[in-house]
Amino acid sequence: MDESTRTETIHRLKSVAGHINGIIRMLEEERYCIDVITQIQAAQTALSRASENILDAHLRTCVTDAIQNDDADERERVLAEVMQVFRHTNKP
Amino acid sequence: MDESTRTETIHRLKSVAGHINGIIRMLEEERYCIDVITQIQAAQTALSRASENILDAHLRTCVTDAIQNDDADERERVLAEVMQVFRHTNKP
Amino acid sequence: MDESTRTETIHRLKSVAGHINGIIRMLEEERYCIDVITQIQAAQTALSRASENILDAHLRTCVTDAIQNDDADERERVLAEVMQVFRHTNKP
Amino acid sequence: MDESTRTETIHRLKSVAGHINGIIRMLEEERYCIDVITQIQAAQTALSRASENILDAHLRTCVTDAIQNDDADERERVLAEVMQVFRHTNKP
Repeated sequence: MDESTRTETIHRLKSVAGHINGIIRMLEEERYCIDVITQIQAAQTALSRASENILDAHLRTCVTDAIQNDDADERERVLAEVMQVFRHTNKP
Repeated sequence: MDESTRTETIHRLKSVAGHINGIIRMLEEERYCIDVITQIQAAQTALSRASENILDAHLRTCVTDAIQNDDADERERVLAEVMQVFRHTNKP
Repeated sequence: MDESTRTETIHRLKSVAGHINGIIRMLEEERYCIDVITQIQAAQTALSRASENILDAHLRTCVTDAIQNDDADERERVLAEVMQVFRHTNKP
Repeated sequence: MDESTRTETIHRLKSVAGHINGIIRMLEEERYCIDVITQIQAAQTALSRASENILDAHLRTCVTDAIQNDDADERERVLAEVMQVFRHTNKP
């Protein structure tokens, strides 16, 4: 992962952690269920953006390096990892 | 939302906030991209369990009350909210 | 499910079946992988819209009837079914 | 895409088309909403498996070729396409 993706992702995750603390306060204040769920879904969306940015950077660095390399096992390994990430997000 | 769902959800969200702080540390330590993504996906799964539990409690309390009520607008409102939550999670 | 939702859903599913036959032809013509995946994702989106419309109708008919009924087991059963549908679409 | 993935995917999509025709019959027979939704979700899962298999084959053929190639624009193009597929499946 390049440095700017790392910095941006740390920033984004700190924001998500703050968001989740805000949702905890909503629960403590007995706020309306649907409003709480909407905020949880927004936090999940922010996490999805974070994982997309990391995967994007990963494809352009580690995956590109591995595929340009002569080691077939290493190529196989990085592609299998990308598929594992994709399968997890894809409809069960 | 009933009290036990509220308490359990607060507990779960505090755990997710701790998890996300752990992911921030992984990024600061320059850990492998795929390991970071896997942890982000695990945090999203925990958030999904939280929103499911809240929706379950909501159906059994607010939605049930509204539907047993004579106010057709109120029934319509709570069902539209449930559908909005469902549409958000459903495949785009 | 009301009659208009049923008719509309049958229409929509016939369109999805036609869409999938079109994707099979794309494969037979050795079209580009990403274009095939994009069409599969579009078919999934159409199926999501179909299941949302059915759930919406279900909430307004069967679920509303069951909740307005005195039979607590029946209420419990229909709400558990709605949650099962929601859990399936929600992030694993 | 290799020949065995293409053949297997065509077989799988023919099975999904048959499945969807079965769901249309369920609707015509006025079967229970939740049973219809469950079958739609199963058809979506089969489509997800199909798109995963195509993406897997695509990574091992076109993407690997493009990345091993000297053309930076082409590398950029195939990686952007993979990310577009991933973003579509990821939580909105």
